[in-house]
Amino acid sequence: MIEPVTFGDDGVALLDQRQLPHQETWIELDSPEAVATAIRDMVVRGAPAIGVAAGFGMALAARAARGLDEQAFRDRLDAAAETLAAARPTAVNLAWAVERVRDTVRRTLEDGATVAEAAERAEREAVAIKEEDIAANRAMGRHGSMLVPDGARVLTHCNAGALATGGYGTALGVVRAAVEEGKKVTVLADETRPYLQGARLTAWELQKDGIPVTVIADSMAGSLLARGEVDLVVVGADRIARNGDVANKIGTYPLAVMARRHGVPFYVAAPLSTFDPACASGDLIPIEERPSEEVTHLGGMRLVPEGVTARHPAFDVTPAAFVTAIVTEAGIVRAPFPSGIARLLGLEAETAEPIPPDASTDLSADEDENGAEGADTAAVLAAAGDDGEESPPPADGADPGEEELFS
Amino acid sequence: MIEPVTFGDDGVALLDQRQLPHQETWIELDSPEAVATAIRDMVVRGAPAIGVAAGFGMALAARAARGLDEQAFRDRLDAAAETLAAARPTAVNLAWAVERVRDTVRRTLEDGATVAEAAERAEREAVAIKEEDIAANRAMGRHGSMLVPDGARVLTHCNAGALATGGYGTALGVVRAAVEEGKKVTVLADETRPYLQGARLTAWELQKDGIPVTVIADSMAGSLLARGEVDLVVVGADRIARNGDVANKIGTYPLAVMARRHGVPFYVAAPLSTFDPACASGDLIPIEERPSEEVTHLGGMRLVPEGVTARHPAFDVTPAAFVTAIVTEAGIVRAPFPSGIARLLGLEAETAEPIPPDASTDLSADEDENGAEGADTAAVLAAAGDDGEESPPPADGADPGEEELFS
Repeated sequence: MIEPVTFGDDGVALLDQRQLPHQETWIELDSPEAVATAIRDMVVRGAPAIGVAAGFGMALAARAARGLDEQAFRDRLDAAAETLAAARPTAVNLAWAVERVRDTVRRTLEDGATVAEAAERAEREAVAIKEEDIAANRAMGRHGSMLVPDGARVLTHCNAGALATGGYGTALGVVRAAVEEGKKVTVLADETRPYLQGARLTAWELQKDGIPVTVIADSMAGSLLARGEVDLVVVGADRIARNGDVANKIGTYPLAVMARRHGVPFYVAAPLSTFDPACASGDLIPIEERPSEEVTHLGGMRLVPEGVTARHPAFDVTPAAFVTAIVTEAGIVRAPFPSGIARLLGLEAETAEPIPPDASTDLSADEDENGAEGADTAAVLAAAGDDGEESPPPADGADPGEEELFS
Repeated sequence: MIEPVTFGDDGVALLDQRQLPHQETWIELDSPEAVATAIRDMVVRGAPAIGVAAGFGMALAARAARGLDEQAFRDRLDAAAETLAAARPTAVNLAWAVERVRDTVRRTLEDGATVAEAAERAEREAVAIKEEDIAANRAMGRHGSMLVPDGARVLTHCNAGALATGGYGTALGVVRAAVEEGKKVTVLADETRPYLQGARLTAWELQKDGIPVTVIADSMAGSLLARGEVDLVVVGADRIARNGDVANKIGTYPLAVMARRHGVPFYVAAPLSTFDPACASGDLIPIEERPSEEVTHLGGMRLVPEGVTARHPAFDVTPAAFVTAIVTEAGIVRAPFPSGIARLLGLEAETAEPIPPDASTDLSADEDENGAEGADTAAVLAAAGDDGEESPPPADGADPGEEELFS
């Protein structure tokens, strides 16, 4: 299995994803600052993989500070946490993993352990983050594969594969699990400008696994959906709000709108660590604006005239109304998302506060106000109860998403 | 003014658009076969510019055959017409221009002219096609600029500019006319994968004219529309069916859907030669599939792993229901499009046959059955009567396009 982030006595090693598919180069890092820089420069990318790398960054900080006194040790970890968390703003797994290691260290010290013991505990916690991520992806695959019919033509965006995670993948984990069950699956991969994660990474890792993959330009997806050439869409996520709004790689939102228009189910596969319980809705998710040069240049080649610049919002937000279901390691969530997500995260029902009516998913929010009262209407389905046959959303006025769609 | 196709004693000269924005290289061609090859290889592209080049290709054939007897002369022209018309299938201007020159020759000979006179007439007709195209673009600009408010942020796709036409441009002609009237206009240009006509050509020609332009990846348009950063969309067209369905560069269709979702007007600017009176609806328009390598490689650089291929549909069809208005040299057409287009093309009302109910624009078609009866309801608006303030389409159930949108 491809594992893009490893940790050992020599430090953290990252498969340099900027060099794929042409070269498999590993970069060795020995400090949290170096890990943060590698995350910012997209040596490693993909929300769960960024989380794994950041966890190891904290472990490196703990290892380097193991000879200090307790206050200095804590200060070093706090500084590392700040540096790592600032590397990229959109993926919530980054902050989640950093906090998890820092919290473990804090509790270990409070329990009376030595600094050296706490440092060792930090390393074990970081390793656990990676191992749990891989296990979560396998569980996600088992649940999600039931949504994938035999012979399915699956469209995906960006790379939500082994390269984006500890290993196995989220969206591509669902594809892998279906293939492991003996289903024939073919994948259409959006090339995913400007970084071409689909053309470079998704194509690379699926080809390695012998899963048929064809690349398309991002702008071709709508037309292939219109022609009936896609059976389902599955993507990953960088952050999911409490109401089910999904921040993911730029281009995900129009893809979801086009899938809905053509009655094709649109699935999001993401571990629980991608949900942000502090975030009520998608409009509160910070959207990273990356450098213009990443759009205007490719492989050192200038694509636009001298003096012309580009915009580069790196993510967009897909309103929950366009999401058919979210696949997690704990099962599959469907609308109404707020109550389902609250149950999944073990939040009190009150925590899933009603969304104001002008929010982008007001209909789901309305349903949640009811759903939060009656647990019977909650949306966490046992994956075993799912028959894998998705009905497209109704096209008439009864579709709860429709009115919202053109507001 | 940039004129990408010129004609003189030495033959046809084409500005090699594959080399832009880095180099301005002109290619000289002295036979219709060479012109057809240049069209297929995209030295020249853009439906009206292809038409202009093809007309000159016919003129070259006539010039070379001017010493032959009448039957041999006609045979040469027929052979040239066949070669040129086969170069690219989607743009209707190509066949239109070829037929126009051939028809002129036929009528000239029938009127008793000599072969030499007919050959000279062919050249004059080809020159007229180009001059009329530029004049049509200027007229289109005058009409269309009334749809562009001062300060407008205009989003466009591909290149529908001077480089796509005899000169001045269709969609960018509308922008140029608004700027000439003293309005401040800024342009967001979709880069338009795989050929990057937006990043390379639209950016190049707008920068030359001092019109502010920013490039975005195609996948960013939906998110910028959602954020309210676009006031209107204007694109060109490769073929427009009698019912108003628009074939244009791949990616146009999802752009139109996203514009509708966010209440942003979506305009098409195209000369009458882009309308195909023989084509009842968009599903009858042939969609060119181009080589995989144009997606998998860029500037000689392989983007995908060895052994992975790509799909490359070069165009898509935007149903008329998503088009706010079509700007032509004869004025602006709005829904119901079938009756408006029939009037514009001087077709009998009966020719605009009712579209079968399963066609993609059944609502427009229904309205047309009424509209064809009462000329008062026809949709050709004098551009002077337009106030330039577009109301977004209504978001409630009264929107005639809405039911169709999610069928």
